[in-house]
Amino acid sequence: MLVLLYIFFGLTSARLLDLSHSVGEDSRIWLGYNGFNRTAFFYGTQDAGFWLTAYDVAFPEHISTHLDAPSHFYEHGLTVDNIPIEDLVGPAVVVDMKARASLSDNAELSTEDLNKWLEKHGSLPDGVVVFIRTGWGERYFNQTAYFGTDSKDVTKMKHPGLSRGAAEILANYNETHGRRVLGVGGLDTPSLDPGNSTTFPAHQVLAAKNIYRIEHVANLHLLPDIGAEVTVLPIKFTGGSGGPCRILAKISDQVASGRIEHPSTSKPAKI
Amino acid sequence: MLVLLYIFFGLTSARLLDLSHSVGEDSRIWLGYNGFNRTAFFYGTQDAGFWLTAYDVAFPEHISTHLDAPSHFYEHGLTVDNIPIEDLVGPAVVVDMKARASLSDNAELSTEDLNKWLEKHGSLPDGVVVFIRTGWGERYFNQTAYFGTDSKDVTKMKHPGLSRGAAEILANYNETHGRRVLGVGGLDTPSLDPGNSTTFPAHQVLAAKNIYRIEHVANLHLLPDIGAEVTVLPIKFTGGSGGPCRILAKISDQVASGRIEHPSTSKPAKI
Repeated sequence: MLVLLYIFFGLTSARLLDLSHSVGEDSRIWLGYNGFNRTAFFYGTQDAGFWLTAYDVAFPEHISTHLDAPSHFYEHGLTVDNIPIEDLVGPAVVVDMKARASLSDNAELSTEDLNKWLEKHGSLPDGVVVFIRTGWGERYFNQTAYFGTDSKDVTKMKHPGLSRGAAEILANYNETHGRRVLGVGGLDTPSLDPGNSTTFPAHQVLAAKNIYRIEHVANLHLLPDIGAEVTVLPIKFTGGSGGPCRILAKISDQVASGRIEHPSTSKPAKI
Repeated sequence: MLVLLYIFFGLTSARLLDLSHSVGEDSRIWLGYNGFNRTAFFYGTQDAGFWLTAYDVAFPEHISTHLDAPSHFYEHGLTVDNIPIEDLVGPAVVVDMKARASLSDNAELSTEDLNKWLEKHGSLPDGVVVFIRTGWGERYFNQTAYFGTDSKDVTKMKHPGLSRGAAEILANYNETHGRRVLGVGGLDTPSLDPGNSTTFPAHQVLAAKNIYRIEHVANLHLLPDIGAEVTVLPIKFTGGSGGPCRILAKISDQVASGRIEHPSTSKPAKI
């Protein structure tokens, strides 16, 4: 019986990986937004003799590693608190576009790039969360290198992103293949669309299908291209257009050691 | 191979439960703290023709369903961003104190109550997160009933909580039984200590052992007393004393249907 449960929870052979940057004054924020502020409400030993620390915080919803709810770019889209909990757990795949990103400023993952990946790895599992590894994550702690400018001018931003065509393949995957894409992004960049975008078509196309996006993802170099399961838990702002989220990846020892090539999972039920 | 991974991720027979309330103007906050504020930074159709919504938010770290980091009540305790990711996943148990809570204002779970539970269910598994079901969760959406006062006067608060003695059993569990308690609380109340506490001994005792607490937990009536696994993912405030968190419980169909009585899990490794 215990063995059955060990297998059920799958923890005996799982490795955990945190894909989230911290949230604070040192966090990256899209250049068009306000910054982070924190003030101490309690700090120090209280009159009654015990230690107490508690802060007030103020920040834009889209700070650090965060989820964009569909409502961010689609008037009728789900707000962050209304995304069903079962849409926040699923198998993860990583599409690597480091080679493409090295070719030009504002490089876009093309439909050809994405189709090549699908030919190599096979079709996407149902309920997948798609991550895009651009290599920009290595620049995260260097504000100027990460945004491509040392100014606050959003028109000067330079970073890779997803093309409209690649976004459309993922947005329409359920209609064309009968398998839902829950989330896209998982980009290690400041935004899903490339830095020079002014109309954000990838955001729009995915939002219209109630697919969430994730930006400023950490540790993508440690996430295998296939074989991990992710739990994406954003702060549940009432009516929010998004919010900082923690992303936990579970990687089985078999996948980590390369003994299983192409895993798949089915979706859990909701209570 | 696919079957192995199905078993690994365990999702084919899992039910998911969200133990988190949303975060907004309608959230419960300890009476001594400031409130929640939200302002629209973008709201509506932009000049370029697309819809965009994004908010700025301001609130105390300890709002709605949230994690208290050890540093909240212990100067040398872990801050919320430094809690190891593997300490945020573990088996859950629920200690029910509804009967005790019905006997008096500010009822405390006693050492006898806790020991009776342990005699009935057996010892705690390693890496456990302990939830306390008081029944107060049914009052969450009624501010006055939940806090026991319609004022903002913290000295008038009335709600059940954990006694110092019960907190000490859990804080010392690793030393006495060789099994770590990761988190305690999981209370469906405004605070871990009862409403009339002025020195918060349960907070202090657990914080000193770097055990986190969770407050304002949702849906505890749906969490089985044993047999669930929880993932507790707080917002990762740099140096934070805590933060709103999402708590995802996975409940196997076997547990949900009562076919397995006392599961256990071991801890995953960290990457």
